[in-house]
Amino acid sequence: MEYQALFLKINNSLKGFQDSGQVANYIPELAKVDANKFGVHLTTIDHKQAGFGDDNEKFSIQSIAKVLALTLAYTFEDEILFKRVGVEPSGTPFNSLYLLETDQGIPRNPLINAGAIVVCDVLMSHLKNPKADFLKFVQTVSGNSAISYCERIVTSEKSCGYRNMALVNLMKTFGNIKNKIDDVMDFYFNLCSIQMTCNELSKTFLFLANDGFCPVSNKVILSPSKSKRINSVMQSCGFYDEAGEFSFKVGLPGKSGVGGGIVAVHPGKYSIAVWSPKLNKKGNSNKGIAFLERFTTETDTSIF
Amino acid sequence: MEYQALFLKINNSLKGFQDSGQVANYIPELAKVDANKFGVHLTTIDHKQAGFGDDNEKFSIQSIAKVLALTLAYTFEDEILFKRVGVEPSGTPFNSLYLLETDQGIPRNPLINAGAIVVCDVLMSHLKNPKADFLKFVQTVSGNSAISYCERIVTSEKSCGYRNMALVNLMKTFGNIKNKIDDVMDFYFNLCSIQMTCNELSKTFLFLANDGFCPVSNKVILSPSKSKRINSVMQSCGFYDEAGEFSFKVGLPGKSGVGGGIVAVHPGKYSIAVWSPKLNKKGNSNKGIAFLERFTTETDTSIF
Amino acid sequence: MEYQALFLKINNSLKGFQDSGQVANYIPELAKVDANKFGVHLTTIDHKQAGFGDDNEKFSIQSIAKVLALTLAYTFEDEILFKRVGVEPSGTPFNSLYLLETDQGIPRNPLINAGAIVVCDVLMSHLKNPKADFLKFVQTVSGNSAISYCERIVTSEKSCGYRNMALVNLMKTFGNIKNKIDDVMDFYFNLCSIQMTCNELSKTFLFLANDGFCPVSNKVILSPSKSKRINSVMQSCGFYDEAGEFSFKVGLPGKSGVGGGIVAVHPGKYSIAVWSPKLNKKGNSNKGIAFLERFTTETDTSIF
Amino acid sequence: MEYQALFLKINNSLKGFQDSGQVANYIPELAKVDANKFGVHLTTIDHKQAGFGDDNEKFSIQSIAKVLALTLAYTFEDEILFKRVGVEPSGTPFNSLYLLETDQGIPRNPLINAGAIVVCDVLMSHLKNPKADFLKFVQTVSGNSAISYCERIVTSEKSCGYRNMALVNLMKTFGNIKNKIDDVMDFYFNLCSIQMTCNELSKTFLFLANDGFCPVSNKVILSPSKSKRINSVMQSCGFYDEAGEFSFKVGLPGKSGVGGGIVAVHPGKYSIAVWSPKLNKKGNSNKGIAFLERFTTETDTSIF
Repeated sequence: MEYQALFLKINNSLKGFQDSGQVANYIPELAKVDANKFGVHLTTIDHKQAGFGDDNEKFSIQSIAKVLALTLAYTFEDEILFKRVGVEPSGTPFNSLYLLETDQGIPRNPLINAGAIVVCDVLMSHLKNPKADFLKFVQTVSGNSAISYCERIVTSEKSCGYRNMALVNLMKTFGNIKNKIDDVMDFYFNLCSIQMTCNELSKTFLFLANDGFCPVSNKVILSPSKSKRINSVMQSCGFYDEAGEFSFKVGLPGKSGVGGGIVAVHPGKYSIAVWSPKLNKKGNSNKGIAFLERFTTETDTSIF
Repeated sequence: MEYQALFLKINNSLKGFQDSGQVANYIPELAKVDANKFGVHLTTIDHKQAGFGDDNEKFSIQSIAKVLALTLAYTFEDEILFKRVGVEPSGTPFNSLYLLETDQGIPRNPLINAGAIVVCDVLMSHLKNPKADFLKFVQTVSGNSAISYCERIVTSEKSCGYRNMALVNLMKTFGNIKNKIDDVMDFYFNLCSIQMTCNELSKTFLFLANDGFCPVSNKVILSPSKSKRINSVMQSCGFYDEAGEFSFKVGLPGKSGVGGGIVAVHPGKYSIAVWSPKLNKKGNSNKGIAFLERFTTETDTSIF
Repeated sequence: MEYQALFLKINNSLKGFQDSGQVANYIPELAKVDANKFGVHLTTIDHKQAGFGDDNEKFSIQSIAKVLALTLAYTFEDEILFKRVGVEPSGTPFNSLYLLETDQGIPRNPLINAGAIVVCDVLMSHLKNPKADFLKFVQTVSGNSAISYCERIVTSEKSCGYRNMALVNLMKTFGNIKNKIDDVMDFYFNLCSIQMTCNELSKTFLFLANDGFCPVSNKVILSPSKSKRINSVMQSCGFYDEAGEFSFKVGLPGKSGVGGGIVAVHPGKYSIAVWSPKLNKKGNSNKGIAFLERFTTETDTSIF
Repeated sequence: MEYQALFLKINNSLKGFQDSGQVANYIPELAKVDANKFGVHLTTIDHKQAGFGDDNEKFSIQSIAKVLALTLAYTFEDEILFKRVGVEPSGTPFNSLYLLETDQGIPRNPLINAGAIVVCDVLMSHLKNPKADFLKFVQTVSGNSAISYCERIVTSEKSCGYRNMALVNLMKTFGNIKNKIDDVMDFYFNLCSIQMTCNELSKTFLFLANDGFCPVSNKVILSPSKSKRINSVMQSCGFYDEAGEFSFKVGLPGKSGVGGGIVAVHPGKYSIAVWSPKLNKKGNSNKGIAFLERFTTETDTSIF
């Protein structure tokens, strides 16, 4: 178990790490989480696995689920999808209205809130029972039929999702939302409420490390070309306005969520998920980034 | 010469390519260039080479030189450099004043004009004879003592460099320019005037494909860690507000210039330079991007 | 009837006026209005009156009603009101989200949509039956118990009021909306649906020409100081991002609505209302402004 | 001398006024001024005068001079002038680059820095010896041949006028500066360096209270219509992003300068100048505004 030894070593080296981050508190449910939780889990495309800490405990994956929504929408619409949402980094905070207004309702990319809402709207136009059908897709990719939404998180998000309501209304003004706002937002809030463990998360994203083929479920999820493209979108846009910083330090495509999770993939090698709830000012897991930075340095597995 | 055969094949496949792009015309000297020039040159870290078309003709590398200025400044200042210039994509056009004002004179990254001007200012504080010393550095990296500035381009740029003057004055307001404005801008305009052939350009950037060690000159230019970091900056910020698009299509870190050149590197494998003067609306070589997109597809060498 | 003769003369002089304006079409109900309607009505503080054209026909006063909401809120809250909404011109279109985000949910002034929504929220906290109580206030000021809301307009606005929903949600994010969003917006859309004739409108605004005392109803509506202040707000902010242009040409404080109405007051002298449904690109009545420009020139009654 | 008694009374009432303002310190020369200076001077169109405090001491009128430059340019160009500079409030700080970029180099109005620089450029195209000819115009309007530029202020401004250099370069990019940048800025910095006493300043602006006719020099400076229009521009744009607040409190068209001066006119009645060097956060004289607010209340001479 060389990876496990490495995880232990890195974790020890981070003992002096001053984590000045804050647990997300914009919704009551997230604020309840134990700030000191820490888990990491790695799955390689040749079926090795290694876990450490709380890697079998569920947490709210939040924005990480946007990559899965994008994946399914991309299979439905191909490149046409990108007429309604871009692939460029936004250069401003993840929930900004400024660029959305300037760009006439076309979000910069599918991994900021506005973009993920458009992706949800796209999925609603393709799926008969959007929530049930999408969950089934996630269960397939993860090879795990126990993955589910969290009702309490959904309720909590809805009670204070004013900025997301501002975003969707602004996009509706520009004609970039086709379905009913309340339906789209119900789907979106459910999407963000999905819960997984680090173990499950690293397995779920393994297809992106393997040219679109999922070794867990033995299914083709995406074509190699589309898989690469989603990785490039994660690389450019996966960390709000800290995407460059993550790329600079860690050197892997990945995606973070305000629940404190981060998943990153090394194309051709592995998928790794970390979880530590304290976030830095940009909304990304503080210790999660620090851990991954050391991991890619120790294993010399930056893609650069 | 398998690569050369591939170049020919790709070039043939692009014969029907409708190039609606325009040669840069903001300075008279660039507008004079023959719009139909096309060259490509590849150099691998294990000393293979392949060229096609006008790959031995000099052109103005323009913004591509910003990567070389960043490289040298990074060796002088280490991570402290990034207190004065960020590593995030800008999300707005390359010469925008908006973010620069919002961010109080700290440019988003070293590859937009404002950031490169700050890098020039940093270099001026370290070099005794900035222009001469920097040129010597470029000659060393390229293993070619014939690389030089182009006086006509410098004069042409100065005659209409009003927006760059606006940028540097705005940064001076915020205290992020330490030297005299006229001196900094003279250095900056010289930097952008460097001329190379595709052949020379691909050799010059080879150290970034080789963890900082230049196989041409047998010299360590950068540490492996710094080399990776510069690649990640190119990945995030190398193509103005089309960085995501380039990453999405080509899947390599790279840098473009308004002279129509693009250089891209595959870490651990090769450096490739293309030149085609017609630019798309974002200011990047139209055919250059198309060529590289097919090249990484054919060779399956996207980093994703 | 010297004023009536003058109205006729000005109207004749405008016969060659090329009205390239467009009737507001963002809601179906407004688009139905006859584009060629034209009315004007003047009421002086010493009880003279003059009307011309369709001055006794009802139209939707739309944003003009915002001044009446401001008036009532000002009587309830005094200067404290201006902690939640400013008195500065916005410099950007009337429904922009940009400044609202920059200014953390505090609208620039009470006459842009966001500001009027805050004023509605304030009124809801003071009135027992907001819609009924406010209508009664308007009836009092106008000395006319037949003034009413228009249900069809309300329904029409609600069916496509996405941008206003974006504004109110964004302000709720910043804590500047205290009541339930749906209730506030129902009140707001009713406010904008009020219908009046030019005749009624000029009488309704007469108190602002008379230091806050309404000669029609013989009631004090506002203190002289508050009356002056509302006039100054109309002067600075009454015409979206064309306030300076209106001030430059007409030289009177006033307010326009997308129904094609404009009301203007000359402090110490008169109140005048015009109606012509074709709007210029800034959303103000084209012929209405032209008419008022000639009127203040002919009568030498610019306040400047 | 009833006005003098009133000045004394108001000044006494302001004794408890906590002036938390700061003397302008962006250039060394302005920072040297005695913060406790206070002067006020009123001149009526029927030749009454009243002064108080340091009303015969020279100070740097700074931006107030922009109104005089606008006046002269308006006589040369008529309405065509407003193709190159608007009449709308800017809604953002006086030296912002944001709107200037959005509006493609057309400043919002002639009283912000960018607008005044365009006006200087216009004057340079009309005047043979711009600095000398303009000074002569100011001397004529003021009826005072001793008015002059201040060389020390010019030198001081030039040594740190980086933001203004950014503005002019940005406008040159858009083609809205016709003359050489250095010449235009030399003229602009001289314009801002003009020194006057409150006494002189109130006389100089009297033509704007008198439909364009200067009772001091017995000369027509502007047509009545143009005079009104300049007043309306001062009303909308005379106090940077505090124009609405000044209008709300004082109710007169006016213009402030960072030297601590304010001049305001009541059309048909008087011109009044105050001077108190401590500025509020928006860059306008703190005590100056407070004094004028009480003055128009006491004399009931708000234009609203």
